[in-house]
Amino acid sequence: MSLLIKNIQTLFQMEEGPGPHRRVLKGAAMAELPALNNAWVLCEEEKIAGFGTMESCPDRAERVMDARGKLVLPAWCDSHTHLVFAAAREGEFVDRIKGLSYEEIAARGGGILNSAQRLRDTPEGELLESAWLRLGEIMDSGTGAVEIKSGYGLDTDSELKMLRVAARLSEISPVSIRTTFLGAHALPRQYWNDRSKYIDLICNEMIPRVAAEGLAQYVDVFCDRGFFTVDETDRILETGGRYGLKPKIHANELDYSGGIQVGVKHNAVSVDHLECTGPDEIAALLGSETMPTLLPSTAFFLRLHYPPARAMIDAGLPVALASDYNPGSSPSGRMAFVLSLACIQMNMTPEEAVNAATLNGARAMELEQELGSICVGKTANLLITKPAPSLAYLPYAFGTDPVQSVILRGKLR
Amino acid sequence: MSLLIKNIQTLFQMEEGPGPHRRVLKGAAMAELPALNNAWVLCEEEKIAGFGTMESCPDRAERVMDARGKLVLPAWCDSHTHLVFAAAREGEFVDRIKGLSYEEIAARGGGILNSAQRLRDTPEGELLESAWLRLGEIMDSGTGAVEIKSGYGLDTDSELKMLRVAARLSEISPVSIRTTFLGAHALPRQYWNDRSKYIDLICNEMIPRVAAEGLAQYVDVFCDRGFFTVDETDRILETGGRYGLKPKIHANELDYSGGIQVGVKHNAVSVDHLECTGPDEIAALLGSETMPTLLPSTAFFLRLHYPPARAMIDAGLPVALASDYNPGSSPSGRMAFVLSLACIQMNMTPEEAVNAATLNGARAMELEQELGSICVGKTANLLITKPAPSLAYLPYAFGTDPVQSVILRGKLR
Repeated sequence: MSLLIKNIQTLFQMEEGPGPHRRVLKGAAMAELPALNNAWVLCEEEKIAGFGTMESCPDRAERVMDARGKLVLPAWCDSHTHLVFAAAREGEFVDRIKGLSYEEIAARGGGILNSAQRLRDTPEGELLESAWLRLGEIMDSGTGAVEIKSGYGLDTDSELKMLRVAARLSEISPVSIRTTFLGAHALPRQYWNDRSKYIDLICNEMIPRVAAEGLAQYVDVFCDRGFFTVDETDRILETGGRYGLKPKIHANELDYSGGIQVGVKHNAVSVDHLECTGPDEIAALLGSETMPTLLPSTAFFLRLHYPPARAMIDAGLPVALASDYNPGSSPSGRMAFVLSLACIQMNMTPEEAVNAATLNGARAMELEQELGSICVGKTANLLITKPAPSLAYLPYAFGTDPVQSVILRGKLR
Repeated sequence: MSLLIKNIQTLFQMEEGPGPHRRVLKGAAMAELPALNNAWVLCEEEKIAGFGTMESCPDRAERVMDARGKLVLPAWCDSHTHLVFAAAREGEFVDRIKGLSYEEIAARGGGILNSAQRLRDTPEGELLESAWLRLGEIMDSGTGAVEIKSGYGLDTDSELKMLRVAARLSEISPVSIRTTFLGAHALPRQYWNDRSKYIDLICNEMIPRVAAEGLAQYVDVFCDRGFFTVDETDRILETGGRYGLKPKIHANELDYSGGIQVGVKHNAVSVDHLECTGPDEIAALLGSETMPTLLPSTAFFLRLHYPPARAMIDAGLPVALASDYNPGSSPSGRMAFVLSLACIQMNMTPEEAVNAATLNGARAMELEQELGSICVGKTANLLITKPAPSLAYLPYAFGTDPVQSVILRGKLR
C-alpha cells in the first residue's frame, strides 16, 4: 500500500539525508523545528518512503490525500500514561473541589488504592475493553506511540494482569506501545505498618515474574513525599536493573524528594513530573542521558506549580511532554492540550512543545530511531491538522482539537 | 415535527409544573440542580412539550432518539463572546510566551487595536463567513444561545458592520443571539492624546446609530486599568440608557477598577470578568439585580488570577459562566472546557457550574424565560452527552468534548 499526502501547507519535523539523525533535542536546539512549505510525504507499507516540495511530487500512489491549508507533523509520542484502569474517579474530583487535597484523599485509602481495589475486582477482558476505547480516543487525537504503566494492581497477579492487557493492546493496535512495571505506585494498606515487606514482594516476586514473562521494558517507582523513599527507590531500581528493566521514574511531583538524583544515579531513561525542580536537580540532570519528562495536565488538574520547563531548557536540558493519562490526576490523554499547557502555562514556544511531544517523547521510550520525526525509513505515523494558519495556532486555539486525520503505520485511521 | 429522546440516563435542570419558574440561582441555590433518572423529553416544533420518567413515556413521535447511558442538559447559554473577528492572533500569543504582557502588547498597538485594523480591512461577507464557521463550532460543542459584542471596529462604520454580521448570524442560524455595542473596547491610536473626543464619538454618533438601526440590546465598556475610566464608563452607560441600551460591562479584569460599582449603579444586566473582586465589590453586587459573569478561559489563557467564584457564591451571589471567545485573550468558545475550569480552578461544584452555564447564563442575556432550563413551553435547546457515568464526569474529563448531539429549536443539528 502506498499513500501520498500532497499540497501540505507545511510539513514539520523532517530529517533529510541518510543520517545519522537527531536522537534528542536539548537546550537551544529545542527551538529548531524543521519545516517545509508546499510539501508532500509518501508512505509505503508501514514506512515513510520520501518527502519533498511539490515541484518534486511523485505522480502516482495507490491512495492520495490532499492537505491544502493543513499542517502535517509526526504523530505524538506520549511517553507516560496509566491507560489501563478499571474506572474513572470523578467522585474524588468532587471531594477535592470540596476541600480535600490529593494527598489527604490518598491517606484515607482513596486515590491510587481506590483504583487498585477496583482493578483487582475487574476481569481482564473488561479491562482490555475499556483500555481499548481509551487507546482509540488517543489515536483519534493524534497519538501514535504510548507508554503504559502497571501500578493499579499492587499485588503480583493484578500487576501481571495489567501488563498483559497492555501487551494485548500492542498486538491488536497499530500504536507502538512500551510497558513499564510500576508495582511501587502506592503502598497497599496491609503494608502500611511494614513497608519493607512490600518492597520485598516487589523485588523478590513481582520483578522476577514480570521479567520472566517479558511483560515490561521499564521499572518505575513513585519516589515522592508520602509514597516511596529514595532508599526504597534505590533498591527497586537496582533489582529491576539486574532483571533487565531500565528505570523510568515518577520524581519530584510533590516535593524535592531526591527522586531526580536517584533516577540519574541509575541512568534512568526518563524522570517524570518534576514540578519540584531547582538548581540542584537541573545540575544532576545536566550531563546525564536521562530525559526530563513534564506532565502539565497533572499540574493543571491538581493545581500544582508547573514544572520549570523554561529554566530547564535555558540550562541546556532536553524536555519531553507526556499526558500522564490516568483516572486520579490527569483524566485526559489529549496531547494537543498538553502542548497548549506547555505554551500557555510553561512558556515553551510552539516549536519546543512539538519537539518535546515528538522526537523527545520517542526518545523517552527509546523509540527515537523508529519514530518521532519524518525521515525516510521511519514508521509512517503522521497527523494531519484541520486547516490552520500556522504552527502557533495549534496550541493557541486550546479548546479545539486541531487533529483532523491520523496515519498510523502508513494507514489512515 | 416532534422529537422524542428516551431512555435518558439522567435529565438535568428540569422545571416542573406551570410556574412561575426560577429566573436566577443565587448562593446556596446554585448547588441545587434538578435531576430525573431514566427519563424522556419531548420536543414539538421549536418547544419543549413534556418530560418525565420512562414509566410515562409517550409511545410515539415523528422522530425518536435513544439516549441510554447518556445525560441530557439544556444547551449552554454563553453570555459573553466576541465571535465576530477578522483573524486569529497567534503571533501575539508567541510574543507573550517570549515575555511581553497582554497590556504591553496592547500599549504598542497590538491586541484589540490589531484586531480593529484587520476588521476594518475585511469585507462584511468575509467576516460573516468566518463568524459562521465559529458559530457552527460552538453549536457543535453544545451552545444554543450566545451574546456577541462589537468592539473591533472602533469607528462608526466598522462597529455597525460587526453588528450587522451578528444580526445576520441570528437570521440564518437556530442559535438565539443577543448583541452588544462595545465601541469602548479600546482607545484607537488617533485618540490617544484626546480621549474625550472618542467618548464624544461613541455618545454622539455611534450609540444613536446603533439604536436607530436596532442593532444591539446592550452597551458595554471595558472599564479597567489602561482602557476606560469609571467616569468615561459612567457617561457611556448613561448615554446608552437614554437610547434603550442596557449595560453589560467588562469590569475588574486587570485591577480593582470600580467597574463593578459603576455597573451596579447603572443596574447593569451583568458585570463580566471580575478577576479583581474583593469584599467591597461583593457588597456592591449583593442586593443588585446584576449578574456577576465569570470567564475562566481568559484567566487560563492570560494566566490571571481566577475570579473568586467560591467567595461570591458563599456570600449569596449568583454567578454565570461564559467563554469570552475572542482572538486575543480566549481563543476558544468551548463551554464544556469553561465548566472544567470552573470546577478545577475555581472550586465550583459540577452542579454550580451547570447552573451558571445554563439558567444563569440565560439570565445574563435576559433570556431566562425562554431558555436555560428544561421546562414545558421553553425553546427546545438541548445537549446530549456521550456516555458518561455521572454529571461530575463531564468537567472531570477535561480533555474530551462530552457533547455528542445538540438539539436546537427542536431539531437535531
